[in-house]
Amino acid sequence: MTSAAAPRPGRPPDPDIEPRVLDATLHIYAEVGWAGFTMDAVARRARVGKAALYRRWQSKEKLIVAALASLTTPVMAESTGSLREDLLAMAIRTLRAQQSRDGLVGIRAQIEAKFYPELFGQAMEDLGRQWRTIFRSLVLLAIERGEIPKGTSPALVLDAVNGILVNHVLSTPLDKMPALVEDAPRYAETVVDFVLSSIGYREPA
Amino acid sequence: MTSAAAPRPGRPPDPDIEPRVLDATLHIYAEVGWAGFTMDAVARRARVGKAALYRRWQSKEKLIVAALASLTTPVMAESTGSLREDLLAMAIRTLRAQQSRDGLVGIRAQIEAKFYPELFGQAMEDLGRQWRTIFRSLVLLAIERGEIPKGTSPALVLDAVNGILVNHVLSTPLDKMPALVEDAPRYAETVVDFVLSSIGYREPA
Repeated sequence: MTSAAAPRPGRPPDPDIEPRVLDATLHIYAEVGWAGFTMDAVARRARVGKAALYRRWQSKEKLIVAALASLTTPVMAESTGSLREDLLAMAIRTLRAQQSRDGLVGIRAQIEAKFYPELFGQAMEDLGRQWRTIFRSLVLLAIERGEIPKGTSPALVLDAVNGILVNHVLSTPLDKMPALVEDAPRYAETVVDFVLSSIGYREPA
Repeated sequence: MTSAAAPRPGRPPDPDIEPRVLDATLHIYAEVGWAGFTMDAVARRARVGKAALYRRWQSKEKLIVAALASLTTPVMAESTGSLREDLLAMAIRTLRAQQSRDGLVGIRAQIEAKFYPELFGQAMEDLGRQWRTIFRSLVLLAIERGEIPKGTSPALVLDAVNGILVNHVLSTPLDKMPALVEDAPRYAETVVDFVLSSIGYREPA
C-alpha cells in the first residue's frame, strides 16, 4: 500500500489532484519556462499543499516530465480515408493548440530540451516518436490507396505541414491571433494544399 | 555631453562594452528565458559593473530589447540571380543559426512575445517586418525573371522554407544536431526543392 492510497486522517482524499496539478504545471511552465518554474507556484495555482505535491512527484523535474508526457499530439490515430482530410484535421488542431497553452508548452520544451537535454530530452523524444509513428501510418495508408507516390517521406510531410503552421503562428503578433484562429480552416487548406501539391497528391478514387 | 562620454577618472573607457553586453544578454536569455533573466547574470558574464550596465541601458527590459534588435536575419539583401540559390543560402544560414544561440533566442522571444507582448511584441514585429521585406523583394525579383508564377505568396514561401527547417531542428535531439549541421547543404536542398516544386519553379534562363 503506497502512502498516496492512505491519506492521513482528517484530510479527505483529493481524487482529481493529478489532472489539476498537471494542468497548473503546464500553465506555469508555458508562462515562465524552466528557469522560472517553482513547486510553490504550482501548489498555489492547483490549490494543493506542497507536501501532497512532493509526496506524489518527489521533485519539480519529475513533475514537469509527467506534465509533458500528458500532452496529446494533434494527429488522430484513425485515418479519415483521405490524406487531405487527415492533414486538414491535424492542421486545424495544431493551429488551435498553438493559440492555447499546450502548443506553446510544446515549442518551449523543444527549445529547452536543447539546453537541458538530461531533463527534457527523453520526454520530448517520446512525444515526438509517438507523433511520428501515428503520422507515418497515415502516410503509408495514403500510399497504399494510391493518393501519393511510393517513397514519399512522412518526416518531410510532417515537418512541412507542422513547420509552416508553427512558423506562421510564431510570427503572428498576439493581437492578430484571434483572427488567425477564426480563419483556421481556410489557412489550414492553404497550407495542406501547398504541401500536397509538392508531393504529387491525387484525390482518392 | 552624456555621462557615457565622460568616464569617471581612474576608470578607463570600455569601448567594446556594448557588443560584449549584448552578446552576454543573448547568451543568458537563450538559456533561461525572460523569467530567469537578471542584470546580475549579464554583468557577471560580460565582466561589466552593474552601474555601467544600468547607466547605458537603464533596465533589463531596455537591455533585452536592444539585444533582440541586434539579431540579424538569415536572408541576404542581394539576390544571387536565382531564387533557388537565394533560398539555399537562407536555408543553410538558418540551419546553422538554429544550432547556435541566436536561432534559439529568436524562437524563444517569439514564444515569449505571446506572454509579454508589451515587452517583446514590438521588437519581434520589427525583426519580422525587416525579414519579410527583404524576402518579399527576392520573391518579386524571381517573378520578374519568370522563375515562379505571378501571384506567388512571399509569406507562404517564407513560412514554408523557414517553418520546415525550424520544425526539423526543434524535433532533432541535441546529440543529433552536429550531424544535422554537417549535413546542412544537402538538407537545405531537400527542403528548398520541396517548396519550389510546390510553387511551380522553373530554372532561370
